[in-house]
Amino acid sequence: MKPPTKTPVSDYLAHLVGQSVNTIDTPALVVDLDALRLNLGRMAEFAKKHNVRWRPHAKTHKSAALAKLQLLAGAAGICVQKTAEAEIMAAAGIRDIYISNEVVAAHKLARVAVLANRMAAENGRLAIAVDSIEGVSRLAMAMNDARAARLGSAVIDVFVEIDVGQGRCGVAPGQAAVALAQEIRKHPALRFAGLQAYHGKAQHLRGAQQRREAIAMVVEDVLYTRKMLEAAGLPVELVTGAGTGSMVCEAASGAFGELQSGSFLFMDADYAANERDPAQPHFEHALFIKTQVISSREDHAVCDAGHKSHAIDSGLPKVHAFDADSELNYLNGGDEHGILRPAGTSSRIPAIGRMLWLIPGHCDPTVNLHDFIIGVNGGLRSGTVERIIRVDARGAAT
Amino acid sequence: MKPPTKTPVSDYLAHLVGQSVNTIDTPALVVDLDALRLNLGRMAEFAKKHNVRWRPHAKTHKSAALAKLQLLAGAAGICVQKTAEAEIMAAAGIRDIYISNEVVAAHKLARVAVLANRMAAENGRLAIAVDSIEGVSRLAMAMNDARAARLGSAVIDVFVEIDVGQGRCGVAPGQAAVALAQEIRKHPALRFAGLQAYHGKAQHLRGAQQRREAIAMVVEDVLYTRKMLEAAGLPVELVTGAGTGSMVCEAASGAFGELQSGSFLFMDADYAANERDPAQPHFEHALFIKTQVISSREDHAVCDAGHKSHAIDSGLPKVHAFDADSELNYLNGGDEHGILRPAGTSSRIPAIGRMLWLIPGHCDPTVNLHDFIIGVNGGLRSGTVERIIRVDARGAAT
Repeated sequence: MKPPTKTPVSDYLAHLVGQSVNTIDTPALVVDLDALRLNLGRMAEFAKKHNVRWRPHAKTHKSAALAKLQLLAGAAGICVQKTAEAEIMAAAGIRDIYISNEVVAAHKLARVAVLANRMAAENGRLAIAVDSIEGVSRLAMAMNDARAARLGSAVIDVFVEIDVGQGRCGVAPGQAAVALAQEIRKHPALRFAGLQAYHGKAQHLRGAQQRREAIAMVVEDVLYTRKMLEAAGLPVELVTGAGTGSMVCEAASGAFGELQSGSFLFMDADYAANERDPAQPHFEHALFIKTQVISSREDHAVCDAGHKSHAIDSGLPKVHAFDADSELNYLNGGDEHGILRPAGTSSRIPAIGRMLWLIPGHCDPTVNLHDFIIGVNGGLRSGTVERIIRVDARGAAT
Repeated sequence: MKPPTKTPVSDYLAHLVGQSVNTIDTPALVVDLDALRLNLGRMAEFAKKHNVRWRPHAKTHKSAALAKLQLLAGAAGICVQKTAEAEIMAAAGIRDIYISNEVVAAHKLARVAVLANRMAAENGRLAIAVDSIEGVSRLAMAMNDARAARLGSAVIDVFVEIDVGQGRCGVAPGQAAVALAQEIRKHPALRFAGLQAYHGKAQHLRGAQQRREAIAMVVEDVLYTRKMLEAAGLPVELVTGAGTGSMVCEAASGAFGELQSGSFLFMDADYAANERDPAQPHFEHALFIKTQVISSREDHAVCDAGHKSHAIDSGLPKVHAFDADSELNYLNGGDEHGILRPAGTSSRIPAIGRMLWLIPGHCDPTVNLHDFIIGVNGGLRSGTVERIIRVDARGAAT
């Protein structure tokens, strides 16, 4: 497999390593590596305590280096959403990858089949989700074509996606899942590996009790579907799903064998707005946009980070206040600007040149705007740049 | 100046040229080049008719190739928002660039000074905006440092930005602008070049009359400021501003010598929602996301383009319907998915594999998500890929 082409690290970025955080040009995507390591340890501990595997979603960081850190910390593998992401992660040496999404285009499935065979040859493993008979047939055809072309005799793990409340992809829980699993069984190059059951909307229900209620219904759907599958002679080896917001519920249910939480690594303003479940590990904010004031007047200042620097699909970023006088509200100033107004009675309009740190509303699409993440040790105020982390799968949408 | 590093065109993209649009993998950013050329011609004609220069904002396309097409069609130069964009466009051979934004970081201003001297040496021209005495002093210091370092003796054109209603950057119209222009005059490496007067919010006022009223106030501010500057012995050579939404008003005012409209080239769903001013040329939708249905059931289908493929800051994309049965509403399905529901009585849920075309809500940040734009001739239904257009300044935020 040809390794993906990479944007080279610029001289500027290369020279940053070892320098003070103060030298980081703005706007920039920065990860607090101390916070990231704490998050990683707390996730590993949580999974161990609940005797559940964790397969973090790489769509959060899109970085092979961070995926490897997760695997070192005990993750079972990674999830991705797209074929291109799987190719990039495999080329970087990740050996257990699950495309937790539907792939239906023939030429993409041909790539999936090539990748499955290549990974199998290296003792790796590729898995994928399906939610239609059509999808199973197309996948089987691609895997058979790969066999006919003597690319290998890999068997791909196939998860049946059930819609447990998200209202997006997935078949209805119950009989439709049985029909799909039976279809999968007809094809020697496919193996029915279990159920994909992710309720994305439940992640962002603000109340802990609301999330518990939503996931209780998910668990009901999962158990019902599993029972029907088992009755049809189709044992369910693994149920995989959950996200950072709801994972305490899936983990406690006993119905899930694997957690797909990804955002815990960075956290974001949207997840931080959730009422914390007492059972949830405390995850630190690790991802920031460093920005600088470029204009300042009596009632507001303007900084150089707009929604070209951070995604605003889940709300505007929060200004990370180190002290009371830096409590500021961030208002949308367009693609390239943020407008800052005092948030507290003692907060002051920042002067031209003042550096600020923003906590993005949503981590995944924020990372997707950047080719590199600047990794810092020792905190945002006086830390040092430790490493430059490539966002290998930035823009990998196909 | 070192040319910026570039992501290579992949084999897949290189092989697309000459192929049918049907072979374009999804999701993909596609430009209808026939529509783009119509838009370009109509803009050139409009500017000529109103005897006004046009300097399209390159933050729309971020592509040197498209900037060159605009210059060939008669544009006076380009605008950019960031130093990095200016560097990339200059390295690609664009010789008249205006950074229509404030730059205050010392190391960025050092780059600006290097660029101004490099461009001057090649008979090019770099201009920049300021909105503070601090900004003028910092710029002057950088230009003087460049002279002391014998990089050249370039004089940079400096526009005073006045806030004409946007409430973002800019000084108040009137005396504050005079004070800034006087400050600029103190520095031999700076030249007071005129006024920057852009009202971004006015672009998206839906009613044509609302936009006329908003720009009438802009024009009042401009004329008042010009009068005060002239009274202080500071002639205003050029007033530059305007966008695609309001440009008929600025053009008709006689107060503006230059239009900065950029979005006309592509158009988007947000601009299309404006009531068209009778004086406005008709601009065609030229920018699309090609997407494909990956899941389909009774009440909805799911396509493979979410907000990782298109920006949603100005609303969700519209589905481009070729016929009544393809009238669909696009609902947010997250980073990687769109949810499609029938919009008309005769519209049907599209089947798995069905290709659809989306009109993005906002063109500029949509382009910023992609490394390449696929240029098509002969329409979206049966056209051919003519060229692959690099988004040279994708992610260039510093």
